Amino acid sequence: MPSTQTHATKPTDALDHIRGILGRQSVERELAGRSAGPRHELQHELLLRQQKGALWREVNQLHPADIAFVLENLPLTERRAVWEEVEPRHNGAVLLEVSDAVRANLLDWMDRQEVLDVTTHLDSDEIADLVPDLPQDVVPSLMERLAPADRQVVQSALSFPEGSVGSLMEFDATAIRADVALDVVLRWLRRRGSLPTGVATLPVVDRDGVLQGVLRLDRLLTRPGDTLVADSMDRDPVAFHIGDRAADAAHAFERYDLIAAPVTNIHGTLVGLLKVEAVLDHVKAASQRDLLSQVGLREEEDLFAPVWKSARNRGLWLALNLVTAFIASRVIGHFEGVIEQIVALAALMPIVAAVGGNTGNQTLALVIRGYALGQIAPSAFRRLLLKESAVGFVNGTVWGGTMAVATLLLYGDPGMALVMFAAMLLTLTFASLAGAFTPALLRRLGQDPAYGSAILVTGFTDSLGFFIFLGLAAAFLVR
Amino acid sequence: MPSTQTHATKPTDALDHIRGILGRQSVERELAGRSAGPRHELQHELLLRQQKGALWREVNQLHPADIAFVLENLPLTERRAVWEEVEPRHNGAVLLEVSDAVRANLLDWMDRQEVLDVTTHLDSDEIADLVPDLPQDVVPSLMERLAPADRQVVQSALSFPEGSVGSLMEFDATAIRADVALDVVLRWLRRRGSLPTGVATLPVVDRDGVLQGVLRLDRLLTRPGDTLVADSMDRDPVAFHIGDRAADAAHAFERYDLIAAPVTNIHGTLVGLLKVEAVLDHVKAASQRDLLSQVGLREEEDLFAPVWKSARNRGLWLALNLVTAFIASRVIGHFEGVIEQIVALAALMPIVAAVGGNTGNQTLALVIRGYALGQIAPSAFRRLLLKESAVGFVNGTVWGGTMAVATLLLYGDPGMALVMFAAMLLTLTFASLAGAFTPALLRRLGQDPAYGSAILVTGFTDSLGFFIFLGLAAAFLVR
Repeated sequence: MPSTQTHATKPTDALDHIRGILGRQSVERELAGRSAGPRHELQHELLLRQQKGALWREVNQLHPADIAFVLENLPLTERRAVWEEVEPRHNGAVLLEVSDAVRANLLDWMDRQEVLDVTTHLDSDEIADLVPDLPQDVVPSLMERLAPADRQVVQSALSFPEGSVGSLMEFDATAIRADVALDVVLRWLRRRGSLPTGVATLPVVDRDGVLQGVLRLDRLLTRPGDTLVADSMDRDPVAFHIGDRAADAAHAFERYDLIAAPVTNIHGTLVGLLKVEAVLDHVKAASQRDLLSQVGLREEEDLFAPVWKSARNRGLWLALNLVTAFIASRVIGHFEGVIEQIVALAALMPIVAAVGGNTGNQTLALVIRGYALGQIAPSAFRRLLLKESAVGFVNGTVWGGTMAVATLLLYGDPGMALVMFAAMLLTLTFASLAGAFTPALLRRLGQDPAYGSAILVTGFTDSLGFFIFLGLAAAFLVR
Repeated sequence: MPSTQTHATKPTDALDHIRGILGRQSVERELAGRSAGPRHELQHELLLRQQKGALWREVNQLHPADIAFVLENLPLTERRAVWEEVEPRHNGAVLLEVSDAVRANLLDWMDRQEVLDVTTHLDSDEIADLVPDLPQDVVPSLMERLAPADRQVVQSALSFPEGSVGSLMEFDATAIRADVALDVVLRWLRRRGSLPTGVATLPVVDRDGVLQGVLRLDRLLTRPGDTLVADSMDRDPVAFHIGDRAADAAHAFERYDLIAAPVTNIHGTLVGLLKVEAVLDHVKAASQRDLLSQVGLREEEDLFAPVWKSARNRGLWLALNLVTAFIASRVIGHFEGVIEQIVALAALMPIVAAVGGNTGNQTLALVIRGYALGQIAPSAFRRLLLKESAVGFVNGTVWGGTMAVATLLLYGDPGMALVMFAAMLLTLTFASLAGAFTPALLRRLGQDPAYGSAILVTGFTDSLGFFIFLGLAAAFLVR
């Protein structure tokens, strides 16, 4: 089955191939430049054109998602060269597939007319997905060009808040009635000639369009033709309201192994279809965001974005980090007199801070995961705090003890070893609490619990570790 | 549509309800203990039993995934009470749904016979998913009890390496032939009376069972009945080999919006079906693992695991962290003479280390994400290194400059300000490189690039920051 194999591994192959040809061409261009006669140059030019023509044909035969993959993984000049040769009929589909950062990039390279033409090959749901990212001044003309029915769908879709089921669903109210036989449904579908792709159920509605249940296609196909829809359908299917949170819907899709689910408005009327592909994209994007946002990277960063743009994207949180580090530095500054007397403290204090920071970040990762899975109810949070501080206490005892022994061996000072032990124990216990409280606090403030939380936790545990260690040293070691 | 609404939000409601009743019961038990007469006690006992009976009926009406959710979010005593009342016919499905840590927990509470009975209500694919987690000594008896065909399926499934398509697929070779009309397919399906659920296509095979293409169900349902399967099928469908990597399959599902895809063996013969639900579980688990593994948490930790178990789970990486912190401490120890002369260095040095650590972790998060998305080819890696060090250089200039001004204002020492600037610039540049190299190195060593990488990067940048800052100070500030 070589054909299927190439399909599944296509994008990386295509990317390597394109990189190869574009790379070879620049080498050949150099060679051609150096070659003697104008005749040689002409030959090279012809060869180049031939290769390029074949390359563009190959690119345009790829699945739009694969073209998107290729574009995302090419540096800017090569990305632009490829994008200009993508046929206009693929433009819309490719724009929908690329990451936000690369989309902005591609749109920058298109003129007004090209942007307007993008929508020709998209359906209204897809247009609605794309509109928020288009240049503001193009949108009015674009809406004017749409058929009235499409315009209405796009406008409704735009009215749903981000992260709601409404914003992810497809507007499709293909549905059947409960009081007909399966054979009638089959005949109706044949006459109709179309059905949403990638669904395994058909919604069943009453005469007012109110959802009654869903009929599984496998039942439609395998049960006797004279059975009524009413006797074959699921009467308590998982369905969503347009206003439900997409994250909750994602949990339901995962729990109940759904392929697609009907979506209703406040009157219970069927208005659309939420498909697993939209949910999968949402889950993936959300988890990637969690990973990046912990270190303060909000935007999905284009791997080939200009350096200054990347630097700016990361600068904000580095600035916050500088502030927390500065606070920690002032904590130490306050104890300069102590360090002057016992300079070994300067070498030992970062150990307390580092292990404290790590402990805090371990708790943090677990709590963020718990929030993402919807596991942390208010009553569970209290229990979690208790448990995490207990874990911090146990680890503080074990590793604080280890470090106390190391300190004793290194400096031969039992007092300093005791201070080290006590400081580790206290810091690790409080660091665990900080790791649990920080995301909870961010959530309470209406922020994403993951966003920048690692920086906040590390900043806090640094100051705390220095303060506890140097404070104990000041109280017990210096006379 | 209240019925659909409750379905989608069920698990948290059920959990709160169960917590409520179990909570109230312990309060009432206390009150009953305190009450005067034995008659009161009896009354309370009866009331308790009634409430409990209703509760267990409610629990057993939940979807197995919801029972799993409830169990995961109950502390150990209450979890055990609920688990003992779950009807045996749900046991298998619930065990399949819970997290690894909770599964081990539940299996501990079951005797040998109960474990054996679990498989009665599971099909062979599900048994294969469960077997690796069952107590070793039960497995032989369990395999003996299976029907020969089931046993074979379980054995083949067990032979697939973890993370392969084979390990995620369902064994199902329901397929149709290309040379028949759609009406014949419809009649055949009715006679057969069953079809895998949650699929939107039927595989098409030749007489040797070799995959020829797939027929979309929407085409089967909407095209004229005398059309041949051959004229309606997709001839180049996305299909996988049993040995393909599950991560690659997940990318393909996302790119091509698949619901299910046929799986073939090395001869191209259809052997099974990979469904989006298995892929979704895999993606979710992998991204959760990334989040946790960066801070060295390998195991999916049970939120209610005993404290000592959690402490041990985290202790290993805390120990590594202690080692890296100890190295950083020895770097400082080497410069104790310098700090003795200029004690302000002790206060300033953690700033360099902290901002360096954060810079390294930002690059790290981007690189881990790039690996997860399959974006980092060897040629892209070189480019990435260049870009990341440039970003580190730019941010080092900006924030190093800021800190130099702050140092000047605070200590009035231009030499110290210059050392601060140079140290920030160098540390941030090298920290970016460390953030890019660490996951690449872990990958080269055959490790998960995310696992513990944050701890390694932070450890390295700490030592580096201290060394650069104190080294520059020793060279230029001390005479």
